[in-house]
Amino acid sequence: MKKTKKAVILLSGGLDSATVVAIAKAKGFEVHALSFDYGQRHKGELKLANEQAKIQKIKDHKTITINLREFGGSALTANISVPKNRSAKQMSHNIPITYVPARNTIFLSYALAYAEVLDAKDIFIGVNALDYSGYPDCRPEYIVAFESLANLATKSGVEGSHLKIHTPLINLTKAQIIKKGLALGVDYSKTTSCYDPKGSKSCGECDSCKLRLKGFEKARKIDPVKYVSR
Amino acid sequence: MKKTKKAVILLSGGLDSATVVAIAKAKGFEVHALSFDYGQRHKGELKLANEQAKIQKIKDHKTITINLREFGGSALTANISVPKNRSAKQMSHNIPITYVPARNTIFLSYALAYAEVLDAKDIFIGVNALDYSGYPDCRPEYIVAFESLANLATKSGVEGSHLKIHTPLINLTKAQIIKKGLALGVDYSKTTSCYDPKGSKSCGECDSCKLRLKGFEKARKIDPVKYVSR
Repeated sequence: MKKTKKAVILLSGGLDSATVVAIAKAKGFEVHALSFDYGQRHKGELKLANEQAKIQKIKDHKTITINLREFGGSALTANISVPKNRSAKQMSHNIPITYVPARNTIFLSYALAYAEVLDAKDIFIGVNALDYSGYPDCRPEYIVAFESLANLATKSGVEGSHLKIHTPLINLTKAQIIKKGLALGVDYSKTTSCYDPKGSKSCGECDSCKLRLKGFEKARKIDPVKYVSR
Repeated sequence: MKKTKKAVILLSGGLDSATVVAIAKAKGFEVHALSFDYGQRHKGELKLANEQAKIQKIKDHKTITINLREFGGSALTANISVPKNRSAKQMSHNIPITYVPARNTIFLSYALAYAEVLDAKDIFIGVNALDYSGYPDCRPEYIVAFESLANLATKSGVEGSHLKIHTPLINLTKAQIIKKGLALGVDYSKTTSCYDPKGSKSCGECDSCKLRLKGFEKARKIDPVKYVSR
């Protein structure tokens, strides 16, 4: 009998990571997902991460509480306003205030710890280098550097087996991600992308909502999520 | 007026990190220390980290709670016995059960986040490649990889300023570390190295106690800490 391959997946409750779970499952991985309660203002995403974990029937799902508010420094964790209605040009320049310092490095470090305990050699993260928000820790060269680090940091590396960081979305447009996810049966009504939701409705105006809406438009699909302003 | 250089330092309550704080201060850095309550069985070290922060009059000291027990997999965080009275040969082979999966990667990730918020370009960690316990995440090549990652992960990296991971103890023997610390006035009675203390007394038999005792012996100094078995 073939041994089941385990994968640790960072699951945020957003569109991208829900798609990544479906991709990993389609590749035959047993999925162990990690979500983070890091003091984000859009905490509702954790409920949706939980729902995705159930709908997609993954092996297990842990939510880790970490306090990044202690450090501050981002519109997502401190009392700074989320920028709205920025143009594509504004969004493509500079690192936005919604960038959370070292967030992906912290998340991937926990994933690495969990992978080592599970003896999993595969970590999946839904970063994207095309329709992304200008965060330094979403770039391909960042992922390559983390994979090198991972293989030096752990028993796996020392003992010679290779740990891989999978980024199946890295070269896809948001429209391509959405098409792929729908083909795999992902229920996007149980995802959220908004940085500044009002109750269960997305604002439709933050960078993340704009990227999502543009993606659905280009994919010629209906976004099943409710928006305040539409 | 010369601008004060800020440094983020990982402070454990042990002998090494207390020495690192003294070294960074002697180099003129304004010290911002981070300690971690990660479910370690030797939690008493946090009280001593706090005392060191006070004695050495550093700028600020935060203790971050993170739950590595959730993952398990180490004698320091799970219900596995700490090995005792291992020979130097046993200690130099294989990765011991006291290794905590990805611990230094997680700690350094938090240090990176804090450095970015403070706009500090310097992170200090008391890892040691000579008298160390065989942990993969204490090796020089690991630190080099983390520094590369740090410069890709953050605003600093993108904006061109360089972030440095300082490891002032990496090539020192435990005896040399102790001599250096004593020359800088470090009070080692307010440090602890034991993985399995009984009340305020160190066991004297775990790998960490043995390395410490050997260090004091070779430095021809008295270890001011109390031991159960001596």
